[in-house]
Amino acid sequence: MPSHEHMKQALQTYVDAFNAGDVATVTGLYADDAVIEDPVGHPQITGRAAIEEFYTNAVAGGAKLTLDAPIRGSHGDRAAMAFTIDVPGMRIRAIDVMTFGADGKIIRMDAHWGPGDIET
Amino acid sequence: MPSHEHMKQALQTYVDAFNAGDVATVTGLYADDAVIEDPVGHPQITGRAAIEEFYTNAVAGGAKLTLDAPIRGSHGDRAAMAFTIDVPGMRIRAIDVMTFGADGKIIRMDAHWGPGDIET
Repeated sequence: MPSHEHMKQALQTYVDAFNAGDVATVTGLYADDAVIEDPVGHPQITGRAAIEEFYTNAVAGGAKLTLDAPIRGSHGDRAAMAFTIDVPGMRIRAIDVMTFGADGKIIRMDAHWGPGDIET
Repeated sequence: MPSHEHMKQALQTYVDAFNAGDVATVTGLYADDAVIEDPVGHPQITGRAAIEEFYTNAVAGGAKLTLDAPIRGSHGDRAAMAFTIDVPGMRIRAIDVMTFGADGKIIRMDAHWGPGDIET
């Protein structure tokens, strides 16, 4: 199991690389067969090609991420963060939970935000 | 599936009732056979008696909860919140994810905090 320091650093890298438009670094945090459910309750996407498309579109849409509070680790295989996504014309408040594999890659991402967490 | 408004209200009630020392209201948010993993990676507790003991001890220890950011819902069966737990002599930063059953009760709580999320 990866250390809590490793997991929290991965989430910080995720935010920083996303905001720099560095899709390769963001997607490189994921395992090849990772699963993303964003938002929770919508269909999942799976695998590197789908994940690369997802982040390419998100970055192209002009989204920027701001942490609302320090990233949390756990005593297990997960880390979590509360953050705000600013897209031109829209703000979304989300909490992402990332689950890590033994090799330190993210194997699952669950994004918690609902209809009431969007401002336009 | 409960509405996102219901789930977010339940988490607000959780925080308010906890801070008021109202263990019955907190535990009443849970289903009889609910599971708590707090922190993620430690053994789970299950069932009403264990959950009542867990919150009775937490309230007796003087813990107070402060939200770090607005509660998040989802498009599914989960809601999440980032908050700070102040216990005399210790501060813990956590993100809890609650999963709800069809009747609107919490069936699972996962508390994300690790060794690096404690200040003494």
